[in-house]
Amino acid sequence: MINYNPKDWFTFIFRIHKADTVKRLFPMFVAIALYSAAIAWLELEVFRLSEKDHIRNITAMHGLLGFVISLLLVFRTNTAYDRWWEGRRQWGLLVNNSRNLALKLQAILPKGHPARAYFHTMIPNYAFAMKDHLRGEFHIHSLEGLTAEETAALDGQRHMPNQVAAFIMNKTGELYRQQVITGDQLITINAQLESLTDICGACERIKNTPIPFSYSVFLKKFIFFYVMTLPMGYVFGLGYLVIPMVVFIFYVLASLELIAEEIEDPFGKDANDLPTDVISGNIRKHVQEII
Amino acid sequence: MINYNPKDWFTFIFRIHKADTVKRLFPMFVAIALYSAAIAWLELEVFRLSEKDHIRNITAMHGLLGFVISLLLVFRTNTAYDRWWEGRRQWGLLVNNSRNLALKLQAILPKGHPARAYFHTMIPNYAFAMKDHLRGEFHIHSLEGLTAEETAALDGQRHMPNQVAAFIMNKTGELYRQQVITGDQLITINAQLESLTDICGACERIKNTPIPFSYSVFLKKFIFFYVMTLPMGYVFGLGYLVIPMVVFIFYVLASLELIAEEIEDPFGKDANDLPTDVISGNIRKHVQEII
Amino acid sequence: MINYNPKDWFTFIFRIHKADTVKRLFPMFVAIALYSAAIAWLELEVFRLSEKDHIRNITAMHGLLGFVISLLLVFRTNTAYDRWWEGRRQWGLLVNNSRNLALKLQAILPKGHPARAYFHTMIPNYAFAMKDHLRGEFHIHSLEGLTAEETAALDGQRHMPNQVAAFIMNKTGELYRQQVITGDQLITINAQLESLTDICGACERIKNTPIPFSYSVFLKKFIFFYVMTLPMGYVFGLGYLVIPMVVFIFYVLASLELIAEEIEDPFGKDANDLPTDVISGNIRKHVQEII
Amino acid sequence: MINYNPKDWFTFIFRIHKADTVKRLFPMFVAIALYSAAIAWLELEVFRLSEKDHIRNITAMHGLLGFVISLLLVFRTNTAYDRWWEGRRQWGLLVNNSRNLALKLQAILPKGHPARAYFHTMIPNYAFAMKDHLRGEFHIHSLEGLTAEETAALDGQRHMPNQVAAFIMNKTGELYRQQVITGDQLITINAQLESLTDICGACERIKNTPIPFSYSVFLKKFIFFYVMTLPMGYVFGLGYLVIPMVVFIFYVLASLELIAEEIEDPFGKDANDLPTDVISGNIRKHVQEII
Amino acid sequence: MINYNPKDWFTFIFRIHKADTVKRLFPMFVAIALYSAAIAWLELEVFRLSEKDHIRNITAMHGLLGFVISLLLVFRTNTAYDRWWEGRRQWGLLVNNSRNLALKLQAILPKGHPARAYFHTMIPNYAFAMKDHLRGEFHIHSLEGLTAEETAALDGQRHMPNQVAAFIMNKTGELYRQQVITGDQLITINAQLESLTDICGACERIKNTPIPFSYSVFLKKFIFFYVMTLPMGYVFGLGYLVIPMVVFIFYVLASLELIAEEIEDPFGKDANDLPTDVISGNIRKHVQEII
Repeated sequence: MINYNPKDWFTFIFRIHKADTVKRLFPMFVAIALYSAAIAWLELEVFRLSEKDHIRNITAMHGLLGFVISLLLVFRTNTAYDRWWEGRRQWGLLVNNSRNLALKLQAILPKGHPARAYFHTMIPNYAFAMKDHLRGEFHIHSLEGLTAEETAALDGQRHMPNQVAAFIMNKTGELYRQQVITGDQLITINAQLESLTDICGACERIKNTPIPFSYSVFLKKFIFFYVMTLPMGYVFGLGYLVIPMVVFIFYVLASLELIAEEIEDPFGKDANDLPTDVISGNIRKHVQEII
Repeated sequence: MINYNPKDWFTFIFRIHKADTVKRLFPMFVAIALYSAAIAWLELEVFRLSEKDHIRNITAMHGLLGFVISLLLVFRTNTAYDRWWEGRRQWGLLVNNSRNLALKLQAILPKGHPARAYFHTMIPNYAFAMKDHLRGEFHIHSLEGLTAEETAALDGQRHMPNQVAAFIMNKTGELYRQQVITGDQLITINAQLESLTDICGACERIKNTPIPFSYSVFLKKFIFFYVMTLPMGYVFGLGYLVIPMVVFIFYVLASLELIAEEIEDPFGKDANDLPTDVISGNIRKHVQEII
Repeated sequence: MINYNPKDWFTFIFRIHKADTVKRLFPMFVAIALYSAAIAWLELEVFRLSEKDHIRNITAMHGLLGFVISLLLVFRTNTAYDRWWEGRRQWGLLVNNSRNLALKLQAILPKGHPARAYFHTMIPNYAFAMKDHLRGEFHIHSLEGLTAEETAALDGQRHMPNQVAAFIMNKTGELYRQQVITGDQLITINAQLESLTDICGACERIKNTPIPFSYSVFLKKFIFFYVMTLPMGYVFGLGYLVIPMVVFIFYVLASLELIAEEIEDPFGKDANDLPTDVISGNIRKHVQEII
Repeated sequence: MINYNPKDWFTFIFRIHKADTVKRLFPMFVAIALYSAAIAWLELEVFRLSEKDHIRNITAMHGLLGFVISLLLVFRTNTAYDRWWEGRRQWGLLVNNSRNLALKLQAILPKGHPARAYFHTMIPNYAFAMKDHLRGEFHIHSLEGLTAEETAALDGQRHMPNQVAAFIMNKTGELYRQQVITGDQLITINAQLESLTDICGACERIKNTPIPFSYSVFLKKFIFFYVMTLPMGYVFGLGYLVIPMVVFIFYVLASLELIAEEIEDPFGKDANDLPTDVISGNIRKHVQEII
Repeated sequence: MINYNPKDWFTFIFRIHKADTVKRLFPMFVAIALYSAAIAWLELEVFRLSEKDHIRNITAMHGLLGFVISLLLVFRTNTAYDRWWEGRRQWGLLVNNSRNLALKLQAILPKGHPARAYFHTMIPNYAFAMKDHLRGEFHIHSLEGLTAEETAALDGQRHMPNQVAAFIMNKTGELYRQQVITGDQLITINAQLESLTDICGACERIKNTPIPFSYSVFLKKFIFFYVMTLPMGYVFGLGYLVIPMVVFIFYVLASLELIAEEIEDPFGKDANDLPTDVISGNIRKHVQEII
């Protein structure tokens, strides 16, 4: 994620950031400009269509469909943003539950009990295992304080967050059997223990479920035909000015689709993705301050 | 569900996928084109209506109602998408709760206790029973590890997921009476146990409740009369170009209704439906890694 | 509720169902048509207003307010639909909680314990009492398995679902005092026990709270004046064609308001209401399969 | 709140209810009409501006901004309605939790135990204390069954619902210490006990937080300038007909803002406010039927 | 936050409050006015472009994109408002949970027990620590009743709310070990104890996550180019009247973006921010009335 000052308008408007859609769409801008120029040249110079030609009124269609395309792009934007925001909320829940679990365990476990050191490293490990898992990666070195036995037990081919969750579950189960944690205390930490797996599952769901194929294909077809037919009618009123106008309209419509595509899977390493590296680091820092 | 790369615009625009609305609406395109051609021929060649004829201004109505039809289609799209997404969320909850139940039970049950094997097969069985139930089917062979007694007890005429849930409930009740599971532990697994039936009920609700009949009938009547009256007024400005324009507008409006119809019941085997086969398989795989 | 096949367009478009707004608005269509005809006749034949008359441009107002009326009708549609869908969700919760309560109790209560028979009839009774209560009715015969004592205790003048909930609460309280249900088990069924009253209260809230009076009165006044002034301006461009146009626009606007009115109280016996009779029946069927 | 029959269109359209915005905006209608007449007279009679004058085209601005103002008013309407509906939901929760608390306590407390009479009056008292508190009032006589000691202990200067909640909390705490309520039973009534304060806090939040000042001021400035500039351009096309048109547009825009202002604080005694007197009365009636 | 009477329209319209966007955008108004005047002068006086020049029709583009820009600004407004309102809701939850924790503890702890005084000061301290933390500040003097030992233990470089939460957790843990709080009572206060950290985490999430960079940059570029091209086409119809029109349209579009920027981080000291100082003070006042 890019940290930025939302109030610095000047930079926003005149600098072209690498994640800016202007940059990524630039080749398309050239193609659309050439296409519009060709249409304008054909209609105005080659066929010398008169002002009365029926094709002029094709603009009526663009007016009628303008609502639909705008509303669909807002629908697209909303659903993509909702996933991004839900992903952020899930990571926020991971922060909260890691902290609460650490706070409760440090109040429960006697000073100097070895399990304190165990949770000191294992609670943050869950965040790191999940971060890598959501990127389809696994880095054993990002997990801290593993014993040789635990390192050997971890199987990189299996679901890594589940294995770390099992470590934590088994340790609390063991402490309960030893009566270090009483039954009442077990009940009070249950919500935090189960939240880890719930959060991981919610993030997997966001990652693995793009919007339905039919909407995606329909929206792209719609934008394409809408923009391709734009110069045909407007060339009569605008002459060669139709070229920048079509490019600008394409910029607006395609940017919305492009940004939506990028943010709907927010767990990668792109410029707009969530800063899961930073959040994982903060979880480790804060949990280790607590316990 | 179709797995696709949302960034591959070229394929989206020029390939006609079998789930594409272009393909499914093609016969209607031909009918609408013929109808528009007939209207154009009648108005322009047979009746030779002049540019001043009142019918020309019927386009005002299409302008005024353009907002309403766009907003209604977005309402339709939103409600259908919400069901699809809620269905996905419920299946995500099933993943989470199956995993959490397995994680907790493997921490509670002593190594080598026979109940571990029981839950190893029975927790994933719930997902399979529910998947088939939502399709109105029942396949005994998709349930694993049933004893002869259990197979005999299952009644294909009765609600299958409830029967599997009863197996799980009874087994945990029995373990509680034997004090293998303590009262405190029973309380900590209660949320997962009851979630199974809640998820199944939520999916049944989505499946059995299309949007109210009145909206469905009103929207179809509205689209029909809107498109049928379109060529009458626009033929004066557009001549025979009215034919592709009406077809394109019909494509946009009908596609939205068609996609909405398809995704509002997301548990079937259509191209846009949720991949419940894959999710059930993953539940089995991950649960069996855990316990 | 009407069960229908949403993919059968032909029937939707050409058949007039009894719940169809076309049927219910028909008398209004005639009145609006006569009114528009009168306006057209007055302006065109009696006063012979010229094309330059200022009244022609009143159409500008309809253009400017077209957005507002569309957006308001969508707001109306959304809020009405949300109530309908929330009502459906509450009944879905009743299904889930009835099933879960039965599943848990059959696991808790020893085989052959008389309380099994009690819950076998009493859990479904809650759904029937609530269904009738939401219609302002009370049918003692829809409750099954009541003892003479219970029948005598029920007071038709008092809140019926609360009385059935009290039966269930008292029975579980008694079983807890007899230690048939342990304290831990009581905690695990607590959520289901309290859900019954929560669901009933939520449905009463939906039923008793239409949208604020001011919106309702404002929207109806707005639609009325909007439609009444429509023919005044459009008659110049459209001549007597203004009659079907005004009728069609009225059909669209009034249908939306009419459908919203009908579905915002979804617990009655209208065509668009929720199938609470069927759901109650299914609750009885499934609960009685379980316990 | 006004109880009304939403299907009685005739009354809605022709009767002017006292809460109707038509009545409240009437003085403004006169002022706007005079202002529009003055603008029309100046432009048409005094300055005799020609049809070609640039001011005629100021209407383009109203077209462009028509979307924005409509969407903003819908945003305003949505947020105000959401508060009103959330307020209603909170009162619905109070109904549910009061009933559930009474249902559970009557099952827990032995027949004839004096605490039954205590909760018989004290649970409904919470609703009355909260209703008055949300109006900035305090009426000791609306609380029933207080002992002389309790009456003396209540401090009208302090937060009244908190004091009633403390009475209930202390009584249940005392019953728990006397083992009339077991630990397991205490856990099962905990959710209801804490809900009282949560509901009161949520209502206070709605009451004390109007939408951000900047939106309120911006929206009013926007409506004002939009309406004030309307007659300037439209007078050329409409002549003196501009007067009713501007008044009608003002009626629509200002009504939406006015209704939103009224319903966003729904706990008072205005016509559109929630019927908290009736709801409190029903809570007392139903709770006292139960315990 | 500014307390205001939403019904006082006159003040809203004619007074320029310091938080008013009119004031903050004033320098931009001057710049836009000069720019528009220059464009008008160039087109009308220098180049003397005819009415037929193609540039006149660039207005078509503004019409087509008018929807998109309006809908995007409403999307921006909605997301910013949602954060502001969620921030308010989280602070409301802090109020509720602080009160409920105090209510429960005063019912649990015997009269005169020293822990009562501890919670009397420590529960409100959490609100003050969190308020300062969300502003990146730390004021030791805003925490009341700390012992010398506690003051020494607090580390200003570490997460302050977590440290206060740890104090509360440890005290309840200690009281549980001393059996002043029973296991059942510990379970009943668990939700309040863990809510503190959950609320703080949710506020941190809102504060640290502006909307995705791409949307922010795209929206600002879009508004800029839209407004900059406005005078080019409209100058033909409006002459020098294009200057106030462009300024007014800029006022509307930029105000929405500006207000959204301001309210999306609601925990500072700006005019539109939440009154966290007042809320913290009220928490202290009400909690100290209770315990």
